[in-house]
Amino acid sequence: MPHSPSRRRTPLREFQLIEALHRRYGKTGPNVIRGIGDDAAVVTPVKNHEMVVTTDLLVEGVHFDLKTASFEDIGYKAAVANLSDIAAMGAKPNYLLVSLAIPRSQSASEMQRLYRGLMLACRPYGVELVGGDTSASRHGLFLNIVLIGSVPVGCALTRGGAQAGDLLYLTGTIGDSLAGLRVLSARHGHKQSLPPVKPSTQELTRRHLRPTPRVEMGQALSRQRLATAAIDVSDGLSGDVRHICTQSRVGVEIEVDALPISAALRKFAGMNKQDPIDVALQGGEDYELLFTVAPRSCKKVEQLGRKVDCLVSCIGIIKPVSYGLRIKDQSGVLHPLPMLSYQHFSAAHNLHREKSWSR
Amino acid sequence: MPHSPSRRRTPLREFQLIEALHRRYGKTGPNVIRGIGDDAAVVTPVKNHEMVVTTDLLVEGVHFDLKTASFEDIGYKAAVANLSDIAAMGAKPNYLLVSLAIPRSQSASEMQRLYRGLMLACRPYGVELVGGDTSASRHGLFLNIVLIGSVPVGCALTRGGAQAGDLLYLTGTIGDSLAGLRVLSARHGHKQSLPPVKPSTQELTRRHLRPTPRVEMGQALSRQRLATAAIDVSDGLSGDVRHICTQSRVGVEIEVDALPISAALRKFAGMNKQDPIDVALQGGEDYELLFTVAPRSCKKVEQLGRKVDCLVSCIGIIKPVSYGLRIKDQSGVLHPLPMLSYQHFSAAHNLHREKSWSR
Repeated sequence: MPHSPSRRRTPLREFQLIEALHRRYGKTGPNVIRGIGDDAAVVTPVKNHEMVVTTDLLVEGVHFDLKTASFEDIGYKAAVANLSDIAAMGAKPNYLLVSLAIPRSQSASEMQRLYRGLMLACRPYGVELVGGDTSASRHGLFLNIVLIGSVPVGCALTRGGAQAGDLLYLTGTIGDSLAGLRVLSARHGHKQSLPPVKPSTQELTRRHLRPTPRVEMGQALSRQRLATAAIDVSDGLSGDVRHICTQSRVGVEIEVDALPISAALRKFAGMNKQDPIDVALQGGEDYELLFTVAPRSCKKVEQLGRKVDCLVSCIGIIKPVSYGLRIKDQSGVLHPLPMLSYQHFSAAHNLHREKSWSR
Repeated sequence: MPHSPSRRRTPLREFQLIEALHRRYGKTGPNVIRGIGDDAAVVTPVKNHEMVVTTDLLVEGVHFDLKTASFEDIGYKAAVANLSDIAAMGAKPNYLLVSLAIPRSQSASEMQRLYRGLMLACRPYGVELVGGDTSASRHGLFLNIVLIGSVPVGCALTRGGAQAGDLLYLTGTIGDSLAGLRVLSARHGHKQSLPPVKPSTQELTRRHLRPTPRVEMGQALSRQRLATAAIDVSDGLSGDVRHICTQSRVGVEIEVDALPISAALRKFAGMNKQDPIDVALQGGEDYELLFTVAPRSCKKVEQLGRKVDCLVSCIGIIKPVSYGLRIKDQSGVLHPLPMLSYQHFSAAHNLHREKSWSR
């Protein structure tokens, strides 16, 4: 696969793609006994650690759109979605496998850019590409990621450990990714004159295209045994908190006023007559960590946030299961927590349902 | 997901599918710390073992056809393709993750049947389903399998260990799967009156739809350190032997007369005026093991074959790299080994190229 900037579309051949990947990413550390190019990868497990495995299948037109994201963006974000899952388990990411089903319209250099994005996201964490698969696709690009990590024995953060009385925390800010998607979609809609990207919306589109997985924070929360349960916000807060509640058999009360909303999202929402709380509750793909903390550990969590330079906000409290899932609005009135998250196989295949809850 | 035999198509919802899988396959052994339903699976690595990981992306219309295979067949064969990769590394398969991109036309019970096929193939080896992903697909069914296995430290069989003078062995018979596919495709072509399946072709269609991975044989070859290199025959013999030669930097001489061809394939080829050798060389998806053995270990390999009730045939000899890749025909004449295997991204998306080499 030539690395030249030629615009000629190089035809894709499977074995050549594998060879090119081998040449480019085949230099692996001493724990990789056998990487790209055999029937399977062989790696040494980390001593005294459990193995953490996640896999995500990303579909053109469902999870990404070639009109609003570059191949590098798609690779980057696919890696982040999986890094974020590993982070939510409190684990360190180690090994990556990538499967691609590639339509004939895609060129070798486009696939190279996709891998570049993947590795750009993974490299800061020392993740090594050890294998994968490539196939033809008749309709659209499909991308499956496998990420394998490791966590000290007994330290994995699950969705099942929250207890009534624990406080509910969130890293960073939420809703930015959905707002960024709306900015990108609107820009794509302007066919004749592309409106300039405003500095205030640049932050939102960056959050959508190049999100940051909370790998250090997740590892610190598990190593220091600070979190009782954790999940990453990939489907949207209102859906993801539900997973913690179901698996921990607890209820929750979330405070609208405590939701961490960025200045950029407030500005965007104001200009577009949208409620930033709506965007925050329904927006997926923020890849922030949502986790529960026993009251005695709250101070340590806030210290940790300052130490690793990660905003942490207490957004609610875990309640007994009989309490249900509620949200307190700005006037102190409690409402049932609405289900706004994206769910595949819903009536429409659109990326986010645009239903409002608070108005 | 209801288990009733109702013919009403139950709409598919992602969370419900995950819950149903959890209910059905969620009971896992003590090494699975966290299975289906969290951000990632958590498993305990096997002590003193290396971890072996393989992944395969299977695409409707490229790897399988809903006209010639049932959902159970598709699941079964997807599992076998990966079990076979693990077998070719000499490893024991342990954990399975399954990602599905599902078009709206597919029902919940169809996806259930696919999982049934997957687990039917995996259960004899004690493989546990620990995770996966589900997504919508706009066009066609996509299925990604991840299989994780374990092999004693230092025992993995790779493609890179063959040496000049080693003998080349093959398990079972080859070409049956391609012949079976041709039988199925021909049957599908008959729209008005379906020709009855003849007993002699039943064996071929079974080989295509329900192949057997050589898991015991692969493990025995690695444990007893009998094989110097191994690969599974998934792309076709003429392509797969090439991978061993490239990675081991050796040449090979294959004897046509030694190729293990079943009576069913000979009969099928005779009736259809095809050369069984052609079918054997170009047919993929037999999932037999192709491996190399130092001359001193040949007797032990043949004893092992008898012990685990697995036909083993010596089909050639490894040569220095300068010799190239050759095949000796029935008259003792040497020819360059033709490249007949299926390669994705080739001009056509057809399952097997129908090029003849020997005529």
